[in-house]
Amino acid sequence: MKRRDFDHLNCSLAQTLSVIGEHWTLLIIRDAFMGLRRFDDFQKDLGIARNVLSERLKRLVNEEVLEKTPGEKGFPEYHLTAKGLALQPILISMTHWGDKHRPNPKGRRLIFLDRKNRKPIQTMTVRAHDDRRLKPKDITVKRGPGHRSSGLDIPLSDLR
Amino acid sequence: MKRRDFDHLNCSLAQTLSVIGEHWTLLIIRDAFMGLRRFDDFQKDLGIARNVLSERLKRLVNEEVLEKTPGEKGFPEYHLTAKGLALQPILISMTHWGDKHRPNPKGRRLIFLDRKNRKPIQTMTVRAHDDRRLKPKDITVKRGPGHRSSGLDIPLSDLR
Repeated sequence: MKRRDFDHLNCSLAQTLSVIGEHWTLLIIRDAFMGLRRFDDFQKDLGIARNVLSERLKRLVNEEVLEKTPGEKGFPEYHLTAKGLALQPILISMTHWGDKHRPNPKGRRLIFLDRKNRKPIQTMTVRAHDDRRLKPKDITVKRGPGHRSSGLDIPLSDLR
Repeated sequence: MKRRDFDHLNCSLAQTLSVIGEHWTLLIIRDAFMGLRRFDDFQKDLGIARNVLSERLKRLVNEEVLEKTPGEKGFPEYHLTAKGLALQPILISMTHWGDKHRPNPKGRRLIFLDRKNRKPIQTMTVRAHDDRRLKPKDITVKRGPGHRSSGLDIPLSDLR
């Protein structure tokens, strides 16, 4: 797949997609969160072609989402950086949506737990400044100083 | 791009990617959240080829993420369904990550507000059952009843 840089779309979501907006990339990051470290483990787990995996890992290292370190016995290892770890709310939000809208008939596939007490975490929810849970139609949007001025003038209309 | 169904990956995140794991698809959904409804508005805003847009919209309607309705003056309109609205935590998590890790030097591009009082929403955070904020390394994972038994046995190790 040709990489798109989305420079014409001055949008934080598009910028995020330019780093992680590709199937394999997100699944590699998922595997890194699960504790996989080595090229061969990513390859076996995902069934991905070696040249594709190699390219994606290189890109994630360049983007400072993963860090490549010399591991035991000379096998390089890939670890999530702070920038990579900060992707976790995205991955958990996606997993929760998939649990609900593309479920496995046998039940939940993976359950995320608070390590301290092993109780399940909450479903990812948007929160107001005072911690109230917000539903999609409770949220609106305004332009910030970095908003593009060119292109279609998005109405930023409230959802109907 | 060839569509992947990821049936061999029994993973809720992979299942979500099979619906929305593609650059344009997520940006079309973003535009729908911003209030865009018509084919030509999506096309102008994203600068996307008409045949690609047409295919992506059709797929989102088939997946029941968007609903196609007859609009004014005979222009069909695309609206987010409940399943589509449920994607908002994912989109907001991605936008917040892009704000922080791929910022616009002029400042924030878009700011999400609580419609009730127009105060900015919180940054998306994982929460424990008792509402404590959890950091990536506070979270672990266990297998649920729908976990795959085949394939590489992911160690589900704690992050180091």
